[in-house]
Amino acid sequence: MSSPRVLVVAGTHGNEINAPWLMEQWQQQPDLIQTHGCEVLSVIGNPEAYAKGCRYLDRDLNRSFQPGLLQQAGLEQISSSNLDREVKRAFDLVSRYGAEGVEPCGLVIDLHSTTSSMGNSLVVYGRRPADLALAALVQGRLGLPVYLHEADQAQQGFLVESWPCGLVIEVGPVPQMVRHHKILTQTRLALEAVFEACADALAGRARYPRQLVVHRHLGSLDLPRSPSGSPDAFLHPQRQGLDWKPMREADPLFQKADGSCIPYEGADGLVPLFINEAAYAEKAIALSLTLRECWPLSLEWTEAFRSQLSAG
Amino acid sequence: MSSPRVLVVAGTHGNEINAPWLMEQWQQQPDLIQTHGCEVLSVIGNPEAYAKGCRYLDRDLNRSFQPGLLQQAGLEQISSSNLDREVKRAFDLVSRYGAEGVEPCGLVIDLHSTTSSMGNSLVVYGRRPADLALAALVQGRLGLPVYLHEADQAQQGFLVESWPCGLVIEVGPVPQMVRHHKILTQTRLALEAVFEACADALAGRARYPRQLVVHRHLGSLDLPRSPSGSPDAFLHPQRQGLDWKPMREADPLFQKADGSCIPYEGADGLVPLFINEAAYAEKAIALSLTLRECWPLSLEWTEAFRSQLSAG
Repeated sequence: MSSPRVLVVAGTHGNEINAPWLMEQWQQQPDLIQTHGCEVLSVIGNPEAYAKGCRYLDRDLNRSFQPGLLQQAGLEQISSSNLDREVKRAFDLVSRYGAEGVEPCGLVIDLHSTTSSMGNSLVVYGRRPADLALAALVQGRLGLPVYLHEADQAQQGFLVESWPCGLVIEVGPVPQMVRHHKILTQTRLALEAVFEACADALAGRARYPRQLVVHRHLGSLDLPRSPSGSPDAFLHPQRQGLDWKPMREADPLFQKADGSCIPYEGADGLVPLFINEAAYAEKAIALSLTLRECWPLSLEWTEAFRSQLSAG
Repeated sequence: MSSPRVLVVAGTHGNEINAPWLMEQWQQQPDLIQTHGCEVLSVIGNPEAYAKGCRYLDRDLNRSFQPGLLQQAGLEQISSSNLDREVKRAFDLVSRYGAEGVEPCGLVIDLHSTTSSMGNSLVVYGRRPADLALAALVQGRLGLPVYLHEADQAQQGFLVESWPCGLVIEVGPVPQMVRHHKILTQTRLALEAVFEACADALAGRARYPRQLVVHRHLGSLDLPRSPSGSPDAFLHPQRQGLDWKPMREADPLFQKADGSCIPYEGADGLVPLFINEAAYAEKAIALSLTLRECWPLSLEWTEAFRSQLSAG
């Protein structure tokens, strides 16, 4: 029985500097992070952006793994192309570390941080059975909340979708370009829980919880804007920092400079995430709305996960 | 008696977005900020950097007001020069709004935010009597702590030094590129206190406190670094966020990835400021060390301030 090979990506966004530093330290001190027998490769997702301290150069790398873009990058590989640098980088990462790559990895863990008060959390994309099994094991072990991102035409091409199995570890709040002890610790703990989950599942000793609690993505809200297009309100003091706390009808949501309140008008009980994330302003996202759901554990998930681990 | 003319600069660093937004809203709602009769001009310090959401383009604008650089910019004004864009911008701002400018302002208030837990605070540069009087009035009114920056060869050329009188309002913690209700409110309150101080002093009704408490800059500490030059420690959990809290000998200061502690080795009682400010990493500053001093109010200060206000 071979050990599962896991790719860990840090610095997919170049201004999220905690995970890259943790990886650098880990290379110097191999027992800093317990791998539980997993074979781990680690890589800086966007080294050029990381060197410059910016999120990306030409476009968001974590929206650049769209099949069409990757295909285009493959076709233009030889010619001197004018593709965005992040599209080339996405292609290079998949070519090297993808399931059919030179150093094939069946699983990927993509490490992120956020200015939102997300705490230590997981993001899964779509409903791939193996991802759900992995998320369930980590949730069962550490209690981390899970954001299930799906069916959003405006946000596509996430890194982990280009691997057969994988998820994002998302930790916050922390400013961009700030190294913070709590973020480093939370990232390490979540990563170790992933490795342990993989090792346990492969060995047939995984203890799954009865259910997986997900926060399913429904959509996003933008800030109110003036006719000229610039934001004319900010997150209401009573909502700032309260990610994961359900919204009630007429809850204060935004506030204008004159102190007037713009209340929440959506469905009762939806859960807001990524509230006031710095990098989402350009995507016109002030927060995302999710529905909390409890999904009973499925044999399909656990079988898919174990099969994926056995495959490599 | 003419009203004092005050220049308010927001967005001197393009990724500090709270003050620029406040100024934009103020233009639309003139009674959003009480001016107490001051004539106020407001300007975005670095509009190109602000549009791009980065601190600066070529070099830190708030280190570009060095007399030598400004002089050079003046000489090369006509020729197509390859000066850094921020040096040109510094020259343009002084040419337009400086004491001898086209729209002369005798006072300048430069609005900043920080990822450090500075709270609502003032920064003065050197010991110019009029600045100290203004800081004393604002401190007397709002209790804001004052950071006195001086005698640091590595950090020169601050914006306010190019005006006869002025100070920085520095508010945090807030991530770069995040608009936050608390930062907006604190900025507005400090700005209104400045306007009130100017109006009161000019009218001869200023009520000064008996003393000014300053935190005098002594120097800065960098993160510990490996032989290759990269940081191999981070701010200790027991020091992160504790700006303004005096350090005691052997206090935990930094922590390595393996959990080991690097204690503080300096003089007892020094006060750390700008702890873990995101933008200071490139300046090799993990925090600055200051000495808390109580200076009795001086007639020289109040006279200089009033005379400055009367002049323009």
